[in-house]
Amino acid sequence: MNVETILRTKGRAVATIGPDETVGAALDELISRNIGAIVVSKDGESVDGIISERDVVHALAAHGTDLLSLKVAEVMTQRVITCDPADSVEQLMAEMTNRRIRHFPVVQDGRLCGIVSIGDVVKNRLDEVEFDALAALVHRRCVRTRSFSTAH
Amino acid sequence: MNVETILRTKGRAVATIGPDETVGAALDELISRNIGAIVVSKDGESVDGIISERDVVHALAAHGTDLLSLKVAEVMTQRVITCDPADSVEQLMAEMTNRRIRHFPVVQDGRLCGIVSIGDVVKNRLDEVEFDALAALVHRRCVRTRSFSTAH
Repeated sequence: MNVETILRTKGRAVATIGPDETVGAALDELISRNIGAIVVSKDGESVDGIISERDVVHALAAHGTDLLSLKVAEVMTQRVITCDPADSVEQLMAEMTNRRIRHFPVVQDGRLCGIVSIGDVVKNRLDEVEFDALAALVHRRCVRTRSFSTAH
Repeated sequence: MNVETILRTKGRAVATIGPDETVGAALDELISRNIGAIVVSKDGESVDGIISERDVVHALAAHGTDLLSLKVAEVMTQRVITCDPADSVEQLMAEMTNRRIRHFPVVQDGRLCGIVSIGDVVKNRLDEVEFDALAALVHRRCVRTRSFSTAH
């Protein structure tokens, strides 16, 4: 199970915002799209930063009332940890746990091609558990059917 | 694997804040404790609400600059989804995915006794994966040792 598997279910659309936009505009994007972070990109392909709900909360404490008119570049996380479609979900979970990061832009050949959140990882695990439960049920029914066939 | 298992590793300490405290005070707690949500409680035992980074971001968009002096009760999520120590991790993952919630206060006999975040669920899964890998390694070594013993 790897990042590519998650993208196949989730899709590759990624919301981005320019570094010169205001924090107020970033806030509108986060809320209207119901997402926890937005990739900062000059051209929609490079990853120049990321601005998350956590960044906004920290910036609110630091800048108070001036926050909304600041530029995204002044508030965003600059050192972004990205992942590759081939990275395993286990690697991603380890990074999420050790670095306390919730969103990973996915980059392939230097271009942004998706984003995976901690919510996507949990959904993926839930799908796995449900699939396993269904497979076990089907297996039990098959075994039972074969037993009946043998009995007749 | 259930909520109790996670609490055994994580501990049962829960940060709370009173509903009459200011959002500014809640912000200080979120940042100084490096947490994503804080339970709102009059007495430290009841769950009267929860205030998360997401609540702060939404309130910032709605109230702008007045936010920091508002009361926690005016901004918090009032209808809190809680869980029981006996709830399975699968149930928790389903709630997290379907309701897009990241923090569940744990309540037993009407009293707050822990909090489980989406980060805790991922850490728990990572521990499980690492334990399974270690168990498989030990198993392979045991089998190899038995083969050697047989050969001699």
